[in-house]
Amino acid sequence: MALIVQKYGGTSVGTPERIQNVAEKIIRTKDAGHDVVAVVSAMSGETNRLIELAKSLHPNPPARLMDLLLATGEQVTVSLLGIALDNRGYDTRCYTGAQVRILTDSAHGKARIQEIDAKVVTEDLKHGRISVVAGFQGVDAVGAITTLGRGGSDTTAVALAAALKADECQIYTDVDGVYTTDPRVVSKARRLERITFEEMLEMASLGSKILQIRAVEFAGKFHVPLRVLSTFEEGPGTLITFEDETMEEPLISGIAFNRDEAKLTVIGVPDRPGIAGAILGPVSDANIEVDMIVQNISQSGLTDFTFTVHRNEYERTLEILQKACSDLGAREVFGDTKIVKLSLVGVGMRSHAGVATTMFKALANEGINIQMISTSEIKISVVIDEKYLELGVRALHSAFGLDDEDAQVQVEGRDAG
Amino acid sequence: MALIVQKYGGTSVGTPERIQNVAEKIIRTKDAGHDVVAVVSAMSGETNRLIELAKSLHPNPPARLMDLLLATGEQVTVSLLGIALDNRGYDTRCYTGAQVRILTDSAHGKARIQEIDAKVVTEDLKHGRISVVAGFQGVDAVGAITTLGRGGSDTTAVALAAALKADECQIYTDVDGVYTTDPRVVSKARRLERITFEEMLEMASLGSKILQIRAVEFAGKFHVPLRVLSTFEEGPGTLITFEDETMEEPLISGIAFNRDEAKLTVIGVPDRPGIAGAILGPVSDANIEVDMIVQNISQSGLTDFTFTVHRNEYERTLEILQKACSDLGAREVFGDTKIVKLSLVGVGMRSHAGVATTMFKALANEGINIQMISTSEIKISVVIDEKYLELGVRALHSAFGLDDEDAQVQVEGRDAG
Repeated sequence: MALIVQKYGGTSVGTPERIQNVAEKIIRTKDAGHDVVAVVSAMSGETNRLIELAKSLHPNPPARLMDLLLATGEQVTVSLLGIALDNRGYDTRCYTGAQVRILTDSAHGKARIQEIDAKVVTEDLKHGRISVVAGFQGVDAVGAITTLGRGGSDTTAVALAAALKADECQIYTDVDGVYTTDPRVVSKARRLERITFEEMLEMASLGSKILQIRAVEFAGKFHVPLRVLSTFEEGPGTLITFEDETMEEPLISGIAFNRDEAKLTVIGVPDRPGIAGAILGPVSDANIEVDMIVQNISQSGLTDFTFTVHRNEYERTLEILQKACSDLGAREVFGDTKIVKLSLVGVGMRSHAGVATTMFKALANEGINIQMISTSEIKISVVIDEKYLELGVRALHSAFGLDDEDAQVQVEGRDAG
Repeated sequence: MALIVQKYGGTSVGTPERIQNVAEKIIRTKDAGHDVVAVVSAMSGETNRLIELAKSLHPNPPARLMDLLLATGEQVTVSLLGIALDNRGYDTRCYTGAQVRILTDSAHGKARIQEIDAKVVTEDLKHGRISVVAGFQGVDAVGAITTLGRGGSDTTAVALAAALKADECQIYTDVDGVYTTDPRVVSKARRLERITFEEMLEMASLGSKILQIRAVEFAGKFHVPLRVLSTFEEGPGTLITFEDETMEEPLISGIAFNRDEAKLTVIGVPDRPGIAGAILGPVSDANIEVDMIVQNISQSGLTDFTFTVHRNEYERTLEILQKACSDLGAREVFGDTKIVKLSLVGVGMRSHAGVATTMFKALANEGINIQMISTSEIKISVVIDEKYLELGVRALHSAFGLDDEDAQVQVEGRDAG
C-alpha cells in the first residue's frame, strides 16, 4: 500500500464527463489498496473566462483581486470531483488551498509556497478518506488568497507529496509520458520509461511543456518521485527519477527544441570589461528575459555579442539595443526571428566525449549551418535556421540511435537496473 | 457622515455592465461623504449553472460540497466589483465570508450566523477604504465553508450592519420599494415611504418576496434600519423602521396575496381532544408545511377541519389524508387548488375596531365568498376563489383608502413625524 498524490490538469477535468473519468481513475487506485490525494486545476476554459470578465472592467486588474477571482476555478473543480466520488460511495473531503494551509508569500499571481500544514489531509488518510485539494492556490500570512501562477497546480501536487512524504506524485496530463523528442516532428520518437530530474529540467526549460519547471525543481529538491502519465489512455507513463537509481546512462535522453526565440547580435563592440553588462543591462531593465548568450573571442579589440530572447520581445529588444548602440560604440545591431533552438539532453553526455562532434557532424551532413552554440554539463544547444527544424531533429534522433531497436534495448536495460 | 451597508442581489450584478453600475452607485455614496460596505450575491444565473453541473454528477449532492461549490459564485462577484472600483481609483478590499469570519453553525445549505468578527472591515473603514463582502456564505467552527441558503445575502448584509453598528442597511433590488399591494394587480398601488418591521414580516411571509424573512427578523432583533430600493432607478425606496418612530399609524399598510396555496378539508371528524394533531401529524411527518389552519366549532359531536399547504404538495397531502381518513373516523376528505389567500396587513389595526368588518363587507359587495378566515394581531387573511384575486385586492385597496390622495397625505404625515 502506497500513498499517491495524483494531479489532474484543466483538460483532464474540462467537462462533467471527464470529471467522472477522473473519479474512476482515483477509485481504481484506491481499490488497488493505495491512499490517494488528488490535486486538481480549474476546468479548461474557466480561467480564461474569468480573466475576460475582469478585463472587461479594468485594463490591468490588481493581482490580489485576480487571485481572489481565479481561485474560484479550482474550488469549483474540487467540489465537483468530490461530488462525483461521493456519488460512487467514496468518503471524500475537499479543500481550497487556504483550507489545507498552503502558506505562500504575498507575491500575488506568482506566489511561492513556504509551508504546508497537511494535518487535515493526514487525518483524512487515517480514516480511509480520499482528499481532494485545489491546485494553483494558497493563502498568505494575512489570509489573502494567492495563486502560484499558470501551471502552478503541478507545484501544489509536488509540494503536497513532499509534505505528506508520498511514495509517488503522478501528474496526469494529455500526453502519455516524456518522449525522446516531439512525436509530431519525428514519427519514430519513443516514450521514455525513465528520465532523470536534471534531464527533465533541461527538457522542460527547452520547450517540452509537459511539466511546470518549478514543480520539477521542487520534486528534485524534496526527493519526490514524479510520474507523468495520460488521463485518457492507460499506461505506465514516464518516471522522473534520481540519478543514482539508474545502472547505466544512455548517452542522450532526448532532443528538445524551441521555436519561440529570436536572435540579436551587436557587431563590433569594444572588448573591454563590463561590456556584456552594458549591453544586457538596458534589456533586463525592461524586464526582458534573455536565454542563450554567446560572445566570441576578441579580434583587433572588437567583439561580437549575440543573445536570444522570446520572439514576442524581439522588436522591443531591437529598439533598446539600437538606442544603446552609440553609447556602446558598437558598429551595428541586427537580429533574426527565423531561428530555432535545438538541444540534445542527456546525463550520459557528462562522461562521454565526442557528443558535440557527433551532433555537429550530423547537422553538417544535412547541410545545416549552426549559428550559435551553447553548452551545459548535460545539454548542448544550437541555433539554426528555422526551416531546418524537422530535418535537424530527425538527423539527431537517428545519429544518437534514438530511433534504433538497439537503443530501445539500451534504454530498457537501464530501467531493469 | 454615516456608515452604510449596501446589498446588491444577483440581478443587480448579473453582467459586467451592471457591476460597473453598482460600482458607480457605491462611489456616489462614498463621494457624498459616507463609509460604504457592499455585500453582493452571485451573478444571476451562476448559482443555477453550478447546481446543474453538480446534478450531472450526483442525483443528490452532499450539502457540504454544494456549499463549497456555490460559495464560488459570490467570490467571483466580490472580485469583479473590487476590480471595477479599483479601476475608478477607489481603494477597495474584497472578502469571502470566511475571510471576514462570518461564523455559522454547520447546517450546510441553511446555516445560521452565530458571530461576525468585523475587525478587518472596521480597519478598512478607518483607512477610508471600501469593503466588499461575499453574501450568502460563512464558515463553521472547523473551517468548512457554509451557505445561508437562497436569499441569504440579505441576512449577511443585515448581520454585518448589526456587527458594524451601521446607520442604515440598504437592500438594492429590482423593485423600488415596498408597495401597498402588487402594482401588476392594482395599478393604483403606491410605494410606502415607511413600513414597520412587524408589517414587513407579515408582508414577506405572505408572498411579497422583496426581502428574505430571516433578514427582516434579524434587522428587527438588532435594531438595524433597513431600506429597500432599486438598483436600476433613483429613489428613496421604503424604510423599514421601528414602531415607536412613527407618530400616527395608518390603519392598513398593504395588501398581500399568495396564489401558491391549496386548501384541504376533512369533513365530519369526531370532535375529541387530540384530533387536530391526529390529522396534521402524518402531514408534518411527510415534511409538508402547513400554513392556515381553521377548525369550526363542533356540531353534534362532529367537526370540520380545513388547512392550506403549498400547491405543489396538494396531491401528496390529499393521498396522506385519504389514508388517514378511516383511522380518524372522518366522513370525507376533499380539497381545492383554485384558491388564493388575501391578507390585510397593518400595525394600526391593533387599535382600530371594525377592520375585519370593513374587509368582509368590501368583499361581499363584490359578491366574493370567503372560504376561510384567519387572523393575527396585525393581519387578517381570507381564502377566496382564485378567480376573484384581482377584484378582491382592488376592492380592499379602495375600501381602506390606499389609492386615495388623502391616504397618501396620511402616510406622508406619518413620515414627517
